[in-house]
Amino acid sequence: MTCNHEYFIRQTLQLAKLAQNGGNHPFGALLERNGQIVVEAENTVNTDRDCTAHAELNLVRKAYSELSQKMLSECTLYTSTEPCPMCAGAIFWAGIPRIVYSAPASGLMGMTGYGIPVSSTELLVNASQPVEIVGPILESEGMELHKSFWK
Amino acid sequence: MTCNHEYFIRQTLQLAKLAQNGGNHPFGALLERNGQIVVEAENTVNTDRDCTAHAELNLVRKAYSELSQKMLSECTLYTSTEPCPMCAGAIFWAGIPRIVYSAPASGLMGMTGYGIPVSSTELLVNASQPVEIVGPILESEGMELHKSFWK
Repeated sequence: MTCNHEYFIRQTLQLAKLAQNGGNHPFGALLERNGQIVVEAENTVNTDRDCTAHAELNLVRKAYSELSQKMLSECTLYTSTEPCPMCAGAIFWAGIPRIVYSAPASGLMGMTGYGIPVSSTELLVNASQPVEIVGPILESEGMELHKSFWK
Repeated sequence: MTCNHEYFIRQTLQLAKLAQNGGNHPFGALLERNGQIVVEAENTVNTDRDCTAHAELNLVRKAYSELSQKMLSECTLYTSTEPCPMCAGAIFWAGIPRIVYSAPASGLMGMTGYGIPVSSTELLVNASQPVEIVGPILESEGMELHKSFWK
């Protein structure tokens, strides 16, 4: 599984670079089901003038409108960076049972993470439908996106 | 201030009823600035087929596109029910400094709250820009919405 994880994480890092090249923050995410990518999304906070348009939230909105609840329950969400609490909550509401991330949130913007001192794991591991969280995967590649961005 | 709180909370309860009458979940929210209502929103999860379309997240998306950062920092968000972690995160990202709610989340759907055992207060009180959380206000009226809905 590590090999598969690395493949899909590399795709999210590409999506994050596309987001940055398009004038947004360097975050990308995708949904995998049965070894196939079913939905992809990038951060569009700046271009949409929408502070909720994180990659994962954009992904959940697309996926929830296109996939059945059963299909969502068979997906893994891959993301270039560990989700913030808003996105972790959205993933929970969508019924997606697993998250795999590259860069840890604690590495963002110095050591302050997202500015909320509750991790995705703390939020979701004891939820009524627990969400499994796996990572970091390819951590140094994931962190590289942020080192070059947040000055 | 309690009197003003009650006035704006009553408006959110009306919005929640409108949401329910329109086929959605009974949640409503508004943004107040200088004593005026500047944005209102309802839950549209069912009609938009969007599990992120909670009243507060819809409100944040509208407000962030229409108001400046400075204006957002002068607003209070009123909501018919204590926000879930997704919405609490969105409110944090928008830079809105205060939440006033009616029904406590712990009273939803039996005693399970939102299914995530981390409250808005736990999430936001120690954030890098702390968000003040006030409530419950008119608790019994706020709870009444849910008693009649979640069977």
